[in-house]
This record gives sequence, structure tokens and C-alpha cells, in this order.
Amino acid sequence: MKHNNYLIVIASILLSCLCAAQEGVKGELLSPDGNLRLSVYAQDGLPYYELQYKGKPVLKPSKLGFDLRYERGYKDGLSLVDVQKSSFDQTWQPVWGEYAHVRNHYNELCARFEQEGSGRVLLLRFRLFDDGLGFRYEFPEQPTLHIFQVKEELTEFNLAHDYTAYCMPGDYDTNEFTYTTAHISELEEELVNQSLAHKGYEAKSEGGLVIQTPVMLKGDNGLYVNIHEAALVDYPAMELNVDDRNFVFSSNLVPNKNGEKAFKMAPCTTPWRTVIVSDKATDILASRLIYNLNDPCKIEDTSWIHPVKYLGVWWEYFVGIGKTWNYSWYRSAVPGVTDYSTLEPNGHHGATTENVKKYIDFASENGFGGVLVEGWNEGWEDWSSYGRERLFRFDKAYPDFDVEDLHAYASERGVKLIMHHETGSNAADYERQLDRAFDFMNEHGYDAVKTGYVGGIVPRSEYHASQWMVNHYLYVAQKAAEKHIMVNSHEAVRPTGLCRTWPNWMAQESARGTEFETMGGNPADHTTILPFTRLMGGPMDYTPGVFQTRMDYYEGGYKPDQWARTTLARQLGLYLTMYSPIQMACDLPENYQRFPDAFQFIKDVPVDWEDSRYLEAEPGDYITVARKSKEGGKWFVGCTADENGHTAFFKLDFLQKGQLYKVTVYADAPDAHYEHNPQAYIVRSYELSRADALRIKAAPGGGFAVEIEPVEGSVSRRKGKTVNVNL
Amino acid sequence: MKHNNYLIVIASILLSCLCAAQEGVKGELLSPDGNLRLSVYAQDGLPYYELQYKGKPVLKPSKLGFDLRYERGYKDGLSLVDVQKSSFDQTWQPVWGEYAHVRNHYNELCARFEQEGSGRVLLLRFRLFDDGLGFRYEFPEQPTLHIFQVKEELTEFNLAHDYTAYCMPGDYDTNEFTYTTAHISELEEELVNQSLAHKGYEAKSEGGLVIQTPVMLKGDNGLYVNIHEAALVDYPAMELNVDDRNFVFSSNLVPNKNGEKAFKMAPCTTPWRTVIVSDKATDILASRLIYNLNDPCKIEDTSWIHPVKYLGVWWEYFVGIGKTWNYSWYRSAVPGVTDYSTLEPNGHHGATTENVKKYIDFASENGFGGVLVEGWNEGWEDWSSYGRERLFRFDKAYPDFDVEDLHAYASERGVKLIMHHETGSNAADYERQLDRAFDFMNEHGYDAVKTGYVGGIVPRSEYHASQWMVNHYLYVAQKAAEKHIMVNSHEAVRPTGLCRTWPNWMAQESARGTEFETMGGNPADHTTILPFTRLMGGPMDYTPGVFQTRMDYYEGGYKPDQWARTTLARQLGLYLTMYSPIQMACDLPENYQRFPDAFQFIKDVPVDWEDSRYLEAEPGDYITVARKSKEGGKWFVGCTADENGHTAFFKLDFLQKGQLYKVTVYADAPDAHYEHNPQAYIVRSYELSRADALRIKAAPGGGFAVEIEPVEGSVSRRKGKTVNVNL
Repeated sequence: MKHNNYLIVIASILLSCLCAAQEGVKGELLSPDGNLRLSVYAQDGLPYYELQYKGKPVLKPSKLGFDLRYERGYKDGLSLVDVQKSSFDQTWQPVWGEYAHVRNHYNELCARFEQEGSGRVLLLRFRLFDDGLGFRYEFPEQPTLHIFQVKEELTEFNLAHDYTAYCMPGDYDTNEFTYTTAHISELEEELVNQSLAHKGYEAKSEGGLVIQTPVMLKGDNGLYVNIHEAALVDYPAMELNVDDRNFVFSSNLVPNKNGEKAFKMAPCTTPWRTVIVSDKATDILASRLIYNLNDPCKIEDTSWIHPVKYLGVWWEYFVGIGKTWNYSWYRSAVPGVTDYSTLEPNGHHGATTENVKKYIDFASENGFGGVLVEGWNEGWEDWSSYGRERLFRFDKAYPDFDVEDLHAYASERGVKLIMHHETGSNAADYERQLDRAFDFMNEHGYDAVKTGYVGGIVPRSEYHASQWMVNHYLYVAQKAAEKHIMVNSHEAVRPTGLCRTWPNWMAQESARGTEFETMGGNPADHTTILPFTRLMGGPMDYTPGVFQTRMDYYEGGYKPDQWARTTLARQLGLYLTMYSPIQMACDLPENYQRFPDAFQFIKDVPVDWEDSRYLEAEPGDYITVARKSKEGGKWFVGCTADENGHTAFFKLDFLQKGQLYKVTVYADAPDAHYEHNPQAYIVRSYELSRADALRIKAAPGGGFAVEIEPVEGSVSRRKGKTVNVNL
Repeated sequence: MKHNNYLIVIASILLSCLCAAQEGVKGELLSPDGNLRLSVYAQDGLPYYELQYKGKPVLKPSKLGFDLRYERGYKDGLSLVDVQKSSFDQTWQPVWGEYAHVRNHYNELCARFEQEGSGRVLLLRFRLFDDGLGFRYEFPEQPTLHIFQVKEELTEFNLAHDYTAYCMPGDYDTNEFTYTTAHISELEEELVNQSLAHKGYEAKSEGGLVIQTPVMLKGDNGLYVNIHEAALVDYPAMELNVDDRNFVFSSNLVPNKNGEKAFKMAPCTTPWRTVIVSDKATDILASRLIYNLNDPCKIEDTSWIHPVKYLGVWWEYFVGIGKTWNYSWYRSAVPGVTDYSTLEPNGHHGATTENVKKYIDFASENGFGGVLVEGWNEGWEDWSSYGRERLFRFDKAYPDFDVEDLHAYASERGVKLIMHHETGSNAADYERQLDRAFDFMNEHGYDAVKTGYVGGIVPRSEYHASQWMVNHYLYVAQKAAEKHIMVNSHEAVRPTGLCRTWPNWMAQESARGTEFETMGGNPADHTTILPFTRLMGGPMDYTPGVFQTRMDYYEGGYKPDQWARTTLARQLGLYLTMYSPIQMACDLPENYQRFPDAFQFIKDVPVDWEDSRYLEAEPGDYITVARKSKEGGKWFVGCTADENGHTAFFKLDFLQKGQLYKVTVYADAPDAHYEHNPQAYIVRSYELSRADALRIKAAPGGGFAVEIEPVEGSVSRRKGKTVNVNL
């Protein structure tokens, strides 16, 4: 197993501390660097925990427990009877990612609680890393607990401080909200405003003030805190109730439509609840805590998994040039039954053999490995999955899409087509078709699939984030792994680091992606928040690369608000700040042809990295990250900024000593602006060394990208200076 | 296609009667023999229909219509604008059944209704047979109707007479009730009593007084009426609201748990609503109307479908001899994950290689083609499907069940094992496993499966009889057909004649079978009602053949009420009265060995017939039927009687002229009684001809069976007499 081949277990010291079952027994644990301090104890029959960072409270006494349906839960009569401690230090190699090596270093405390009367046992396992805390509930096998239903998990996060939160409203079905930035005390009003701007599929979370995770927090106390979960398996997603007077979050599990939250059988565990903490925002972005809490890779041979940059017959469906997924306007076409060759084509179908070949040509000429094609298969004529039993066929192409011809054509040009499976959220039907669908892919040279879950879920008891669906997405990823297929799931439950365990689950959307620039827009600060929230659990298929930011340049444009809130230069920066091992260049080939110098950066930038350095970041304001390529010793830097812009200053001290580098900067022009001058950019080259520094201005809604290439055979003895690129 | 190879379409006369869209336009139709008269018309903006039999009203003016969700339904502003008539006469050959030839002869009327304002169209297609009426709604393709959700179907059956009803209470999940016999006006009180005796899985039907179909009705007006449905496809089962003052039934579709009833897309139809009518009860039993309304066989090659008599490792799990499905008592075994070979066996496991071989031996020695084995596969330790995502594996045997050894052992002896798939009602998981499960069967020599749906349904939005599940059962049957597997589904929605279309769907349980004799019992009249109700839609796997009617003879018996309400002789009669192409002999081999003369009848009786004659019948009292074997010119007669017993008298005039027959009667002994003398029977032989008649007494809770074999080379000139067998 490649990813583990120099796994170094430094220590697994068992510091068993068997204590008597008495009030006042307390578990205490420090992080390896000593900065984080955890306390665990029982009080009034309930487990409690507390967390400090460098002496500052992160979590004040916070309750833990479980309410079960039909039987006594773990919410009274609990005492702490045993504490076991251990340490762990291991370095593992992801199949792909921001870092070639990830250190998994923590001290662990396992607290055993017993319940008076029932004799039932509950374990709470805490792992304290230098960058935060992960903990989970464990239900060991025991005589009086077997199959049980979770009524609610009673986990509290008692922040006790009015942090500024970066978050979205609770919703069982979608994460496609813009982010709200507000003090916890002001969240209710702000979220209501926010919610009005977005129409969820079906349901909001029930109850009072509810937000989704990951939630990013920034405090006047100098702390940055991120709350999410890791390894969401066989359990619903956790949302958070907000007590906006006492600044306490508490878990709110996504139910199914019967109000049932989780069906479990002992022995079992919950996912890990994660609290990442630092006094530097960049540490939050650099944290691998969530990945570390997931199981190691379960795919033995990962040689077939490969990061890829791709183009797609896709963006043209959004920008208003009259192309669409449908083959025909005929409304009663039944996939697999109707003879589509007898239908009248609508003349607007995008996924034609001819059109796809243009993309294959362009991909091949510019070094892209993949071409996504949406609208290739039967079923788009009658979109209403929830209202029907079968919407799409995944092994039947439209008459004007020649699967075999395109397979041959792409293969000859070193390109692979990327499959698209829009399930219309009929997950039940997708599972019926899955084996056949994946076999069809293998028969026709596809090794990656974009899945889609637009609409209300079938089985009709389920939400996008309820337990059954959580299991469904993983089932699809596992089936795909068996068949050597990479998965990029859209509209699935937000990720929780499972791509460590199943690295063929390359990316997800699970947030408001670039497509929304054509449907109301993403605020200018959106990409300065996503890495602190959505990306904490795994890569996002954000589909950057919009060069033609005003989509109403085209005929038949949808609406006046159909424009990307970004400069062109920032779009290049996103290839660094929005990490994904499958990364799209979403715009039309003709738009890239209009800006060949800028497009060069997209051609050059890798999608898999040796190392990463978050140089500077503030959630909602800006992010600047440097990444080292796996081959050739190159570095790339990217920045994204909010509507106020940002002047980045950073030293090049991450470069190799004594080496001269060619530094190419793709920056906003001095007068660039995301609203009224988005396409003004400059490309400048310099020869610099690690002694130098760069000062680069990101325009309002702007950003930049830098490519740094060693000058072969060069020796540098430069003293160093600061280069002001566009100021 | 064997079943159609001398299909004779005598006439398809189009009697188009295009009428102007005016009030008072009326469609009128007679049955081919003129006995039934149908009227169709619009009144107050709604469709109405009426039905008469030999001048007597069967249905007085009865409303039709549809309520849709989110849009205007078909329940106002409708006028009848066109009536088209035609006739049809065809004889088809079932792959198996009670008759080798079935005549499908009807006059048809298709009424076109148009809606004021919306311009929407609704067709009502009526087929009038000599034995009753079938009609359905048809939603043609039209501009303003596309994907729609049915809020309720508004079909009425205005009986206008206080019939005696034989029926069970409404329930979305189960048909395993005993039958209630009561005047419609007394149903409410009687059904409440009945319901108390039975605990449904999850839910009763909502609303007031609701019953299930098929419902059998017997009137003081001399009429017998049966109401049910045919070809239930992509639609929920219909139950019936009862207006017990005006004697009106109205449709009550089974919803899912969200209250959603049916998701449809135009063009589409509903199932057929059936009203079978006669003044003779035997005509109801002989009716093929429901089969005729189903599509012809869709399986091209049916050569692999074969009726079969079978034994089973099954009854021993019910009778209290300490055998069970589980391999171990260990509770947290996880199918496909736990290594079962490391678990401690419980010593009570029935499906062991050794035990199964005993059954194979016995089957082989006595000419049985199949042996069902339940409890062979992983998962029985933790029965709680609704509470878990995965309960059973269908391709993993317990360690003490040697699939390959048993396959070889059975093959050598001319026996096939019958697979068992208990889904625990996790239909979603079953669909995931289905392909693999059927492949596993083919790999190991199984060609028939008994499926089970015990417990609450997963997907958790569904009931056993809701639309999604209706589609599921058919999906399983279709997948099975692809893989050449015969299906016997238990706890599925009650059948509606689909076995004509999918003749590999051999039988279903879908009612209270023999197993309930060990769990509270089936009333003595149960088997005199089932053929008038449950069997109207298709064969039932009732599992007759209990010789040891007192199950508490065994050690460790469950309860004092664990005894079959039947005589032994009646059990033989059930092989005739409870038709099924797969028919079990459910009792233990040792019990058959104790009564070899009676067992001879079970060995002899076929399960597929050339012809059938219902000789006499009254619902709730008795049924006597004669059937002719497909080979050898034999006839068999069977009778079942209620708690009062019955003296059957019938002529042998169905026998061939001039032929002498050996007639063997298996009858209750004169002093037999289902309660206190159930095993008293006599076997008598006679030589008789078609001139003769038999008078045979069925004891209280009794019955009889007769085997009639031509005496080879004989010639009979007998004048005929009545033989009194046991009087």
C-alpha cells in the first residue's frame, strides 16, 4: 500500500490510568506541543469536556450524551469510571493532495462512562492534535444495547464567546448557499436575510436557529476555530443549533422525513466531531486533522487513480448561448423505452459527437487529460425525478452522441471523456443501474464520473444529508473503486475527509460553485470563505477558469445578474486556493483562445502537490497559498481577495537556497475591478531567489497567480529585494 | 410464444360512435352474452357508470374521477364527448394454471371525457365480459398534463344493497388477517373485533371504515359480486372506503409515508378495476377476468418455467421442536463482515447440510421436485431490518450449510433446492444485492426463490402496498425472468393477475397462510373464503399438507392455540381448492411416513391442469372443485368445508363417455372433527363412470380429495348410481 509505505509509528504508549468510579474523576490531556488542554469528566450524571488553547478557553464546560428512541438514552446517571491514554505519531502519503506527506500526531484519551441502573457503557474517545481536537462516541458491544435508534445526539460546543461566524443556514438538502458573516449574537437576523436569497429544495432544518458545518469562527480573543466532523459513515450529517445568547452550539442531526435520525447497531461509533483551533488563520487551512481522523486508504492498488485537469461540454449550458442538455423538446420520452432516434431533435443539444470532438481537440492541444460531457444520455426531456420512478438511463446515449466514435477519437488524442450521471436524486434507481452504468463506462474508456443529485431524494423518506443517503454516496464511491472509477459527486452531503480512505472519491461540489455566477452570483468574498468551510472536509470541484466574466455578452443571456464576481486574474489564483485533484477549466475554448497568455497559467498549473504553504489568510478577506509541484521543483502561488481587494506581501523563503528562479506573475492590472474592469490583467516576469519578496495587489474581487520555475544550472547570490508588481 | 400459438382473434369490430359533446350523451354496452349491461355518462361535470346483471342493478350510478395534487384534477367540468366501441375474442394458453386454454372475450367501450376550461382529456376504458366488468382510467399525452401526482382516485362502487361481505380491514402493510364475514351495515363493529385479533406491522389505513380487496359479496338479491383490480403496475394498491349506510365503496389508494399516493407521467393508465358478477358462486371462482385484463406473457422462452411440488426445511421452525433459522445466538453478527465460522453455533440451526440431505432423500423417494431451505444464509442473528441498513447476505451461506455439496447431492437425486431470500423488508438493500443473488442461484443450481418481506419497509417512506414497493416486486420478478428464476413472493402486495404477463412469478403468499396455524390459527372457514378473495388475483403459496394438526405434540411447543383448524382429509382437498403451480407439502417427513395412504394422494396430485370445474361453492361455507390432469386423463376432486362441515353431492358427468374409472376417495371418517378428531380419515376405492355420482361428507372443518383414474382398456355401460362414501 503505497500511501503507507513509510509509515512510522513512533510511539503508542499506553498510559492506562484506571480510576475508581467516583465523582470528581477527571481526564486531562495535552496536545503533543502542549498548547491544547482537554478536560473530561462527569457532572450531574452527564459527560462534560472542556478545551483550552494556550491558556485561553476554546470550549467552556460542554455537555455530551445521547437521546435514544424507545429506550433510556445516555443522558442521565453517567459516571466516568476509567480513562485510558495513548499517543500516536505516523506519517502517511496521500495518493494525491496538497501535501505528499501528512503527519498524524496526537495524544488520545478514551473515557469510559457507565450508567447507573442500566449498567450501560459509553466510551468517548478524544484525540488531541497540535491543531485541534477530534472526539467521537463509541458504543461497545454490551448485553443491554443492541439495535437502537438515535433520537438526538446531545453534543455541545460551549464557545462562550461572541465569535464572528462564517456559515450558512441549516438545511437538510442543500449546501448551495452563499455564506453569512456575522457575530453569533447577530446570526439570526443575518441568516434570515441570507435564507430569503436562497430557495432550498425541500426543507430547512427544523427548530430555531440552525447552521451547517463546517462553520468557521474568528474571535476578538485572537482565536480561529473551525467546527465540523470527520469520517461521516452510516450516520446523518450534523448541523448545529445556535444558542446566540450564551454562544453555545449543539448537534442537530439530519433526520429522515419520518423524523428518524440514525439507525445503529452496537458495537458502533459516531463520526468524529472536530474542533480545529489556532491563533493563526493560515493554520486552519493547513490543518490535516480531519483527514487524520479518517481511516487509511482501503484501496489496495491505487495506480489507476490520477489527478486530472479537464474541460467540459457544460459551461455553454449556463451562459445563454442556446445550448442545452436535452436532445429533443419532446416531453414524454421514456429512457430505455422511447426510440429516441424517432424524436425530433431540438437543434440545441450540446453533447453532439461533433461538438465533443471540438473539445477533445482543444483538450489535446492544450494538455488537458479529460473532457466532461453532460447531456449525453437518455432522459433529459422529462426532468422530474421525484415525480417519477425512472428519469435517466446511464447506458444509453442520445442518437447524436456516438460513444464508440468518441472513445476512439479521444484515445487517439490522449484524452479521456469524463462520464456524467445526473441521478435527478433518484438514488434508489441509480443503485439499480449502478453496476451496469460502471460496466458501460469501462467498456467505453471512461474512468471518471461526475454524479449529480439535483432535486428531492428518492427514496422519498430521505434528505440529501440523512443517514440513508450518506450511506448511498459512500456505496457509490466503493462500487466505483471496485470498478476503478474516480468519482466527483455534486449535490452530495458535504465531505468529511473520506477521500483519505477512498481516494477515488476525488472531489465533490457540495457548495455554491462557479455555476451560480450565472444564477444570481457568488459574492466577491465567496472564495475567501470556502477554503475555511467547505474545503475543510475535502476537495471541491469549484470549476474555476471563467475568463469571459460577463456571460450576457452572448445572445439570449438569461438575466442581468449573470456575471462572475471576479477578475480574470483571480480565476488563475483559484487553481491554487481552491485545491482539487480534478480541476476544471470551465470556460469555452474560444474564450481561452482570446487570452492565450493568461491561459498559459491554467495549462501549466499542476493539480497534485509535494508541499503547500499558506502564506497569509483571513476568512472573508483573502487567502494566499504557495504550492510546490511534485516534479521539476516548481512553485506556484495563488491569491483570492474579497470586494475590498488585498495587497499581498510575501517572502520567497520557501524556495531552494542558491537557486535562481524565473518568476511569472499573472496579476490584476492596477485599474482592474471585478465589477467594471474584470479582464484587465498583466503578466510580468522576473528572475528572483529565496532572498526576494513580492508585493502584489489583488484588485477588488481580484487575485493573482505566480509561477516560479528554477532557472536550470543557475546559482544565485542575490541579496534580495521586494518586487512591487502592480502598485 | 407457446402460450399464444393458437391465438384466435375472432373479431375486433370497431363500432365507433362519435357523438356530439352535449349533456345527455350516454355510452351503453352489453356483455357478449347480453347478461351484463353498462351505462356511462357525465353528470354534474363528473363521469358516472352503472352496471346491471340480468336486469338487476349491480352498481347504481357510481362516480369516477381523479383528484390531483398541485393542479386541477379531473373532478369537475367533465363532459362525455366521444364513445368508441369494439369487441374482442381470443383464446390464449397459460404457461401453467387451472385451465390449459383461457378465452378472453369482451365488448369494449372507451369513453372520452373533456374538461371545460382546461381542455384536458380523460379516457375511461370499459371491458364487459360475460362474467363481469373491468375498467381503467387512461391519461393520453396532452399539452397541459405531464408529470402529475395523484391525490386520490375517486372511483365509486355504488352497490346500493346490504351485501354480506367477506373481507379484511384496510392496512397499508399486511394482508395477514383472518376474514370478517358481515353485512356491509355491520362491518364496522365486526372489523373492529377482527382488527383487535391482529397486530399489523406499522399502520392501518387512514380515515374511517376501510377494507382491502379482493372483497367478496353475496346478496339477498341472488347476486355474487367480487371487487378487485387487475394489472397493478406503477401504482399503489387500491383499498376501499366503506359507506355502510348507503352501501357505497370508494377507492382509497395506499399512500407512502409522506401521504403521496401515485407519481405518474402522461401517457399512462391506472390498473383495471374489476367487478366480477354472477348468480352462481362457482362462476366467481371460475372467472379468468382478472387474468384476461393483464398483458399477455412477456417472456419469450418459457420452457424453463415449471410447476413443482416441494418440501421444505421450514415447518420445523414453527411447530416447537426447537429448530430455528439462526446459526448462532450471537447478536452482533454482521452479514458479509463477521466471520461466522468463528461464532459459536447455537445447536438449533435447521438448515444444516445433514438435515437438508434428509429432506432431499425424502423428496427424491416421493417424487417431489423441490426442497425449500430457509435459514441458510448469513444475517438471521440480528433481525431488525428497519433499524439497520443491511440485514442479510444472499450470497453467503452459514458455515454448516455446504452449498456445493448440497447442489451435487440434490442434482444426483433429481431434486432442486429452492432458494430463500428473506429481505426483512429492506427492499432497497435487496435491489443492491439482486444481480449477485440471482447469479449465485444460477451458479449453484437453484431456479426458484421464495422472497420474504417481513417487517417495516426500507425505503422508510414506503409501505408494503405503496407505489414504490409495487414497482419493486415487479422489478424483482422481471430481473428473475431475465435470469430464468421462478419467484414465490411472501408478504408482497396481493396479486392482480400479473402472473399472466410474468409467468415466472409463480405464486405469492399475501394472505394468512398455513404458518398462522401455529400463531393463533386460521378459522375453520378460512380456506372456504380465500379462493373467493386472495386467489382471485393469482395462486397462493398456502403451504397445505399438515397431517400432524396438533403441533403441541412436540416438545417445547409454543402455545395451546398452536393447532391447525382442519381435518387431515381436508388438507388433501386443499391441493385442489387452493390452486398453485408451486405447491408445498409442509409437514415433517416423519408425519407423512405415519400416514402413507393419505400421503399417496399428495404424491399423486398434479400442480398444473388441463381443465377445472367448480362443482359447488358458497363463500365461507364450502368449495368443491374437479380438475383434469394434463397427462393421463385423470381427474382430481377436492373439497374444503367450514366449521359446520358439508355434504357434497356431485355427478361425475365431466368424465369421458364409455370409460370406466378407478375412483379413490380420501374422506373424513364419519366421526372426524377438526377440533377433537382431526386425523380420522378413510380411503375408499370404487369403479365408476360418468353416469355415477358421489355423496361425500366433509366433517366440521373437514374436506376430502378424490383421485379418478381411467381403467385402461375398460368400457363402461353403467347406468349410474350415487355412492355414499362416508354417510
